Amino acid sequence: MLEKPRILDRKTVAQSRIFRVEALELEFANGALASYERLVGGEGGAVLVVPLIDTDTVLLIREYAAGRDAYELALPKGRIEANEDPLAAANRELMEETGHGARHLVHLTDFSVAPGYMTHLTQVILARDLYPQRMQGDEPEEIEVVPWALSRIDALVEREDFTEARSLAALYLTRDRLRDGRL
Amino acid sequence: MLEKPRILDRKTVAQSRIFRVEALELEFANGALASYERLVGGEGGAVLVVPLIDTDTVLLIREYAAGRDAYELALPKGRIEANEDPLAAANRELMEETGHGARHLVHLTDFSVAPGYMTHLTQVILARDLYPQRMQGDEPEEIEVVPWALSRIDALVEREDFTEARSLAALYLTRDRLRDGRL
Repeated sequence: MLEKPRILDRKTVAQSRIFRVEALELEFANGALASYERLVGGEGGAVLVVPLIDTDTVLLIREYAAGRDAYELALPKGRIEANEDPLAAANRELMEETGHGARHLVHLTDFSVAPGYMTHLTQVILARDLYPQRMQGDEPEEIEVVPWALSRIDALVEREDFTEARSLAALYLTRDRLRDGRL
Repeated sequence: MLEKPRILDRKTVAQSRIFRVEALELEFANGALASYERLVGGEGGAVLVVPLIDTDTVLLIREYAAGRDAYELALPKGRIEANEDPLAAANRELMEETGHGARHLVHLTDFSVAPGYMTHLTQVILARDLYPQRMQGDEPEEIEVVPWALSRIDALVEREDFTEARSLAALYLTRDRLRDGRL
């Protein structure tokens, strides 16, 4: 077990409506000093939903992604609200973004997006036994729902409008576990 | 083809040594107005390296991740420096973090980490024909190198110290392409 660096100092150095940046002064076990900055996320983290409509088909959504200034295909996702259960958050996002609820939801794993400089964790939730159920979210326009076959992940990787590593990792993981009879 | 929202206004609302936060005022094609914030990364983006030492084994590194305040296993990665070629950046990071250079480097794909609120793209680079070659980076302590079999990705997902979605997606992608004879 490696000995973690000691945090000598920690302070907020920038803050906006959504983002908070924290500066850390660290002392490593070998005595080396280093300064880091990291983004501190909300307490609850986020959920990424893998909505399975049959044993080879998931629902993707096409939505405007302001970071990339482009429409991107990805799995449904969103923040867990204060005191919200992660599975309930996954079902809410699913209803808001795809117009489906799920009778069965199960936690698969947790992903970090950039562990070096973000505290953020995303819980990956598999959703099955879907039924039509829409909930109004805060989306500024209608979201397009795109069914995609897990046997065609390769073709997804080739698309310029599919880039998100969390979605891709979750799709591979789901496909492998289904193949191995583990789901 | 969806019509992208018009950017009505864009300004920097927070800035630290490393991070810059931009606020966007958008008008969607349907007339809806929305405010977003996003993190603006450096121009060059980043590289993630898949160092292959035989047809089933990659090199992972174990490094302190300040975002998670934990030691994490992941693929080697780092920023592309100004005017640096992405393949050269990948080879430099590989030398700094694993003590190996690569005779063959090839671009596999590009990943976004959070396209909704980060501009950031990561180029995934496969590195083969490795040879011992160390370069001194700015790491505060020695980095442990951990060979890992692609046939054991499942076991990696189960580990608490392996969470990074980009690394996982890149490992699945590499394994699939090797299996299919596409690499």
